[in-house]
Amino acid sequence: MREDFETLARIGSTPEGGIGRPTFSDAHFAARKWFLARAEAAGLDTRVDAAGNHSAVLPTRHRDARVLVLGSHLDSVPGGGRYDGTLGVVAALHVLLAFKQAGTDLPFALEAIDFTDEEGTLVGLLGSEAFVGTLTVESLQTPRGGRDALMAGLRRAGLREERLLDARRDPRSLAGYLELHIEQGPRLEREGVQIGVVTTIVGSRSFRIVLRGRGGHAGTMPMDARRDAAVAAARVILRVQEIVISDFPSAVITVGDVRLEPGAFNVVPGVARLALEFRSQDDGELDAIESAVLARIRAEAEAHGIGLEVIPVARWQPSRLDPGVCDAIERAAVALGLTTIRLPSGAGHDAQSFAPVTPTGMIFVPSVGGVSHDPREYTAWGDVVNGLNVLIGTVDELARAD
Amino acid sequence: MREDFETLARIGSTPEGGIGRPTFSDAHFAARKWFLARAEAAGLDTRVDAAGNHSAVLPTRHRDARVLVLGSHLDSVPGGGRYDGTLGVVAALHVLLAFKQAGTDLPFALEAIDFTDEEGTLVGLLGSEAFVGTLTVESLQTPRGGRDALMAGLRRAGLREERLLDARRDPRSLAGYLELHIEQGPRLEREGVQIGVVTTIVGSRSFRIVLRGRGGHAGTMPMDARRDAAVAAARVILRVQEIVISDFPSAVITVGDVRLEPGAFNVVPGVARLALEFRSQDDGELDAIESAVLARIRAEAEAHGIGLEVIPVARWQPSRLDPGVCDAIERAAVALGLTTIRLPSGAGHDAQSFAPVTPTGMIFVPSVGGVSHDPREYTAWGDVVNGLNVLIGTVDELARAD
Repeated sequence: MREDFETLARIGSTPEGGIGRPTFSDAHFAARKWFLARAEAAGLDTRVDAAGNHSAVLPTRHRDARVLVLGSHLDSVPGGGRYDGTLGVVAALHVLLAFKQAGTDLPFALEAIDFTDEEGTLVGLLGSEAFVGTLTVESLQTPRGGRDALMAGLRRAGLREERLLDARRDPRSLAGYLELHIEQGPRLEREGVQIGVVTTIVGSRSFRIVLRGRGGHAGTMPMDARRDAAVAAARVILRVQEIVISDFPSAVITVGDVRLEPGAFNVVPGVARLALEFRSQDDGELDAIESAVLARIRAEAEAHGIGLEVIPVARWQPSRLDPGVCDAIERAAVALGLTTIRLPSGAGHDAQSFAPVTPTGMIFVPSVGGVSHDPREYTAWGDVVNGLNVLIGTVDELARAD
Repeated sequence: MREDFETLARIGSTPEGGIGRPTFSDAHFAARKWFLARAEAAGLDTRVDAAGNHSAVLPTRHRDARVLVLGSHLDSVPGGGRYDGTLGVVAALHVLLAFKQAGTDLPFALEAIDFTDEEGTLVGLLGSEAFVGTLTVESLQTPRGGRDALMAGLRRAGLREERLLDARRDPRSLAGYLELHIEQGPRLEREGVQIGVVTTIVGSRSFRIVLRGRGGHAGTMPMDARRDAAVAAARVILRVQEIVISDFPSAVITVGDVRLEPGAFNVVPGVARLALEFRSQDDGELDAIESAVLARIRAEAEAHGIGLEVIPVARWQPSRLDPGVCDAIERAAVALGLTTIRLPSGAGHDAQSFAPVTPTGMIFVPSVGGVSHDPREYTAWGDVVNGLNVLIGTVDELARAD
């Protein structure tokens, strides 16, 4: 497995030691091609569906058997790391190889799958949502990366927009979904634990906040006559942090971008545009944060004579993963003598597409320093092997329970 | 004069009711061409110097007489107003026409001049600094608008970089400098005063402030593990305002731009780049603000584990205008029955180039709402006429004192 992992780390490698494999880039195509060729060479069946998802399949002798899906993604953010997504795909492939070699008689087929565009260069979770049937025509009209980029990407990949939804599989054909992933956060490392059993994937809501003050000449506009959009933005940034830290300690909130207009040394900014996002495991808490934070922003704007516009951008429900699958992961880890904790995932994953339709579980291994979406992303090889073994053990547990 | 003012307001007019005449744009060339043709048609001498400054001259019969310069500029910021600069040039032209028609025997020649690039599309104060001999070769190497834009502009205007400095006039040939301008601030309107006598033009210092925190995944990075550059920027914006408002009440400070990196909804910003500028009439106060503000930024950065880089960008000395010329302006206004106050200029002007080399004065007329660098820039026509009359009266006063 290490050889395969290292091979993939060279496809789209960057000088900083990470990888750049945005969806439908040449490096992304090369990684997917390598994956299919590796699976075929090992005697596995392969398939590519209407959403471009690439699969290796280990059939079962049982007639009408369902399929247990083991997935993740080979695309990356620009300037990303070697582990995010890639680890789950390589491990899934090696689970199939292990069971093939052992000749185990499983009650379900195994499908190792590389989903299209998890990271959202174009849409986000494109392949996994098409697979479970939740991809909507609307989300393709105003995709994250822009409509033109999506159309050009689909053309490059030889895919047709009107056929993407045909990738849907009947949920009754699925035995479940498992995903191995790096934590992308610091908890496992901090607490010295080897395996994380993911209980929920957080939900998030994001808003574009537009603050309209009064622009003016930075030399002639007295301080007491100003309604400075930069000052208004600064107040919003500090106040929303304070609210979440004090009242919602398990949630996170981020102002990830600020644009000032016109944006020059010698002009008092008239307009500020903020990118605001918050995440929580609990939908009720998301409601509570939304009302507290927006009320505070409204009050700040009103108190300082600032016009306010709040534009909803995205809304993801929290996903609760299957308690039975969590137990199976835990049993598998304990049988291997590994320490575990249960924890939520702060990042989104293909698993969240599956949680509503089939028993779904996720296994986390430690990320050094919690660093991710960065060339310095790193997981010790021993932890990678632990993750693979727990994934194999969990398949065994599920087979026994089936 | 009103007809000429309206004619110029149509050259480069924008749909919003303002004008767009950036240096060496077609509209700028057209306005300058109109100015020379209008002067020639009225029987004045005209000249264009090596820095592209356009002049109309009313000679005197006195041999070896010096020249009293009446100037401003016909270039504008993009999306600017109809009064800034244009008013001073049209009024200067009409001062010459008035003295020519009256046949007054003045002890000096009068030169009405439209200076090149006051607003800084390319360099800022380019024409007036060349005229007085303070333009430096260095400032042409890293100009505000970029070296390429400067070279292309000079080519379009038929000017040669190596000859710009030839525009210099011997200060001993100058009798003084006068400029009529809109206030661009709210004081005259607020206090119900008709004429402002400018005592000083403020100095300014500007810095690029770079704050380096730690970037990370907005979903997986816990709030207590963050060193968020957006939060650091927000603290800087609020703290520096507080310092200036409480300790330097006659100064102004502005954070006109903020750039966050990478600048996305789902990434904690690792780097923030701020454009910081402050202005004061007093060089000692500029020193005091600089040390107080930079010390506070350093302390904030240190307290929150944020890396800091402070890059000086520009440094303009405050200019004290000539007390004798101020008295002459005041006498002229009082003789016309107009109310006056003395006030500093928060904006930069061509007059600041002249203040160190020849007796220099500036006359302000009210700006409605203090609005400037904006299509809504407006001065009542009665105030324009007052300004013209005070300019004529001041020339008379200076002639009498000569």
